[in-house]
Amino acid sequence: KDEQGNYLVTLLKGHGIGPEISRSVKQIFQAAGVPITWEEHEVYSRAMNKEGDLLSSETINSIRRNKVALKGPFMTPIGKGFRSLNVTLRKKLQLYANVRPCRTIKGIDNIYDNVDLVTIRENTEGEYMGLEHRVVPGVSESIKIISRRACLKIARYAFEYAIRNNRKRIIGVHKAGVMKKGDGLFLECLREINEEYPTIQYSEKQVDTMCMKLAMNPQDCDMMVMPNLYGDIVSDLCAGLIGGLGLTASGNIGAEAAVFEAVHGTAPDIAGKNLANPTALLLSGCMMLDHMELYDHGNTIRNAIYNTIEERDNLTRDLKGAGSTTLFTEAVIKRIENKT
Amino acid sequence: KDEQGNYLVTLLKGHGIGPEISRSVKQIFQAAGVPITWEEHEVYSRAMNKEGDLLSSETINSIRRNKVALKGPFMTPIGKGFRSLNVTLRKKLQLYANVRPCRTIKGIDNIYDNVDLVTIRENTEGEYMGLEHRVVPGVSESIKIISRRACLKIARYAFEYAIRNNRKRIIGVHKAGVMKKGDGLFLECLREINEEYPTIQYSEKQVDTMCMKLAMNPQDCDMMVMPNLYGDIVSDLCAGLIGGLGLTASGNIGAEAAVFEAVHGTAPDIAGKNLANPTALLLSGCMMLDHMELYDHGNTIRNAIYNTIEERDNLTRDLKGAGSTTLFTEAVIKRIENKT
Ligand SMILES: CC(C)[C@H](C(=O)O)[C@@H](O)C(=O)O
Ligand SMILES: CC(C)[C@H](C(=O)O)[C@@H](O)C(=O)O
Repeated sequence: KDEQGNYLVTLLKGHGIGPEISRSVKQIFQAAGVPITWEEHEVYSRAMNKEGDLLSSETINSIRRNKVALKGPFMTPIGKGFRSLNVTLRKKLQLYANVRPCRTIKGIDNIYDNVDLVTIRENTEGEYMGLEHRVVPGVSESIKIISRRACLKIARYAFEYAIRNNRKRIIGVHKAGVMKKGDGLFLECLREINEEYPTIQYSEKQVDTMCMKLAMNPQDCDMMVMPNLYGDIVSDLCAGLIGGLGLTASGNIGAEAAVFEAVHGTAPDIAGKNLANPTALLLSGCMMLDHMELYDHGNTIRNAIYNTIEERDNLTRDLKGAGSTTLFTEAVIKRIENKT
Repeated sequence: KDEQGNYLVTLLKGHGIGPEISRSVKQIFQAAGVPITWEEHEVYSRAMNKEGDLLSSETINSIRRNKVALKGPFMTPIGKGFRSLNVTLRKKLQLYANVRPCRTIKGIDNIYDNVDLVTIRENTEGEYMGLEHRVVPGVSESIKIISRRACLKIARYAFEYAIRNNRKRIIGVHKAGVMKKGDGLFLECLREINEEYPTIQYSEKQVDTMCMKLAMNPQDCDMMVMPNLYGDIVSDLCAGLIGGLGLTASGNIGAEAAVFEAVHGTAPDIAGKNLANPTALLLSGCMMLDHMELYDHGNTIRNAIYNTIEERDNLTRDLKGAGSTTLFTEAVIKRIENKT
């Protein structure tokens, strides 16, 4: 907290449409009286110094100190050898759980109704460790590491999340028929932790079957927990079921810090044109408020967003509206001020 | 060919509902005058001998000799150390390309209309080689191998398939941002082969983005080619878009042999009850007829199936019909005999 008694939160506005949608969040949070002071940090999209530090240590230290950050989209670093900034951030801060709730929003012309899913993704190991090499010319080997430690942590997180959010069912998603040792270990840990949570209904599904099921009957599913790569795939699929990444919140949770982010791209084609939809970053911000136990603020803003979308008040173009970033932001603020 | 001038084809009826749906195929093929003599082979669902050979060498040799096989669903082998029979078959016969066309069938109550997708999946390497070990207690390593040789083969197959089937667009599906060497090599090979096919529009998409796209606008997509595991996931997702595995054909193609299969399960709960839907095996059989250049027979049977489904004539329960395996089979045969 700062001198005014506000919580300090690191803000990484990101690139492309990042600054515009971050402005929208700041305005809406201010209108809702959220007791936050933002500590803004720049992240670079390519090497700015010889060491190639795109994420400066000041940025990392700010997040460590504040324990909470909100982030807009980052550009993919250009040039060989640079790893994704997202992956680096998750790794450096040991943000072991990626959480993506996907819920149908009324007012959006959707293929599916009543979707209400949560993907919990192991966020630090698996295929994302960058362990690869060329065995002989023309043959590459990519290594997927799964550890009991990380599996137990993500399993515990998933079951605790279910209890906290009053969710009833968890599916462990895997391909243990093929990766008996890797995904097998993952399932073993889930089963172990499951024993401590007898009120949660636990089952298992292969990742291919899971994706088919999600395309056919997403309404039958509730929470899913899975290793890194499957989580990447399944969470994007779930986002597709409710209208895309422009509408989905995401959080990366660690023991020492948590980073909430809009997982869509930087949309360079519309950057700076006041056309960007801030919803994903806003909803990620609300997840952050819940995480900070500022539940009332989170609910107020979330309801204002849902009502604005349901009434299709100045929606952005991606939602087939004729509004803009600023008009949509004003529409949300109006509802917060009128408490509707 | 045998003495009557018929083509010899190996038939692996498989387990559970396998025998019933195989019977349906045999009856319908006979009604259509398909010049095939079936060579039936049993595959065991658990070790029947000390060596644990579930797939006997006679079976493998039969397929090698006939070069073509049709297979029903196999049970997953029980017990540690047994690999999936499907994977073993693909590997032993070097069936390097898995092909799964998914097309909306009229008469099925579907979420999506006008889906017409083809997944081409590398079928021999990647995560499916069974290369895994425990590094230290509590840490497993699964190795994904990608070779230039296999990538070039599947890339060539995909572009040739596009030309042969008059398809215009291919998407290379990958996660090369994370697996730069592995999936990077895959993309490199696709780009190389693409240069020889200037009439095909080639693009690339990350597997997560691809799945989201398929959930949102599958109609915009055409052909997709990808490494083994992504192919497993994406092809099941595509099946979900058109009503599930009960309606999707699949072929495993190699240089020396090809095995066409129903990719759904053995459905032990309804086995022997005359309730199983033979459509997936029938459509796989039609793919096989195309492969054997028996195009007229393939088209006749396919049209009869599509018409039967469109008119909802004795559909099985999974399609919300009140028919049965035998009644549906008779309905298809009636259309073949009446040439409608
Ligand atoms: C940018 C990329 C490395 C990242 C991932 O694969 O995790 C993204 O797709 C995501 O899901 O946040
Ligand atoms: C049975 C299993 C090993 C197989 C696979 O993963 O390839 C199946 O899911 C398939 O797609 O044919």
